[in-house]
Amino acid sequence: AQLALERDYEAQREIETRYRVLLEAHPAPLLIVSMSTGRIADLNIAAAEMIGATRAELIDAPVGQELDGRRRGEFLENLAKLAGSDPLGGIELTIRRSRRKVTVTATLFRAAGDRLLLCRLGEAEAQRTRVDDTA
Amino acid sequence: AQLALERDYEAQREIETRYRVLLEAHPAPLLIVSMSTGRIADLNIAAAEMIGATRAELIDAPVGQELDGRRRGEFLENLAKLAGSDPLGGIELTIRRSRRKVTVTATLFRAAGDRLLLCRLGEAEAQRTRVDDTA
Repeated sequence: AQLALERDYEAQREIETRYRVLLEAHPAPLLIVSMSTGRIADLNIAAAEMIGATRAELIDAPVGQELDGRRRGEFLENLAKLAGSDPLGGIELTIRRSRRKVTVTATLFRAAGDRLLLCRLGEAEAQRTRVDDTA
Repeated sequence: AQLALERDYEAQREIETRYRVLLEAHPAPLLIVSMSTGRIADLNIAAAEMIGATRAELIDAPVGQELDGRRRGEFLENLAKLAGSDPLGGIELTIRRSRRKVTVTATLFRAAGDRLLLCRLGEAEAQRTRVDDTA
């Protein structure tokens, strides 16, 4: 029984490691947000850099404290709706710390009785066009 | 104690779900390969489609049965070497089922006492500077 427990523990640790590697390997800045608490459950380093804080500061922070929508506090529900209907549809949000605009697309999934949003942050269209123009 | 065990179980299931969502959310076809067994530990649906088989058929299959390098059986070690030195360097391999050429880039990581390779499959591009598996 002790051996079986150790095997379970190892298998669990391995999935956690794979999860962490995938989160960092994704080419986009990613946030995982809990729909029930509105808090950032996890994020990759690219997302922390885009927001302008450390991962440690951002984990468990209310996402509305870091990102701002046109109508305050509604963007999570809007992202969840969009994720269901149009997986490529994005919402434009503003990073509070830098006032930089970003386009956020999301995938909704369920885990442990909660709804979670996997959010990809990207350059907002207008900024991207500007960058292209000066290229 | 029963409650704590249930919480552990729930937390573990949630990480597994997040892991699965991230594997599928990645824009590229991905394989996770064990360096110790040379077998495919996991893959996303995009990778299964690119290889031309189902996920169920490919999980736990020897990767050398599905992908072929210039010098048989050595490409895993070459990918691992490349992953350490040049994370953007790729190796050109051939999908055995379709004879289609793909460029594979990899990230090496350790989990549960094994070395694992996260491999991204991409279209082989003639115009891209290639690092072949004799490197």
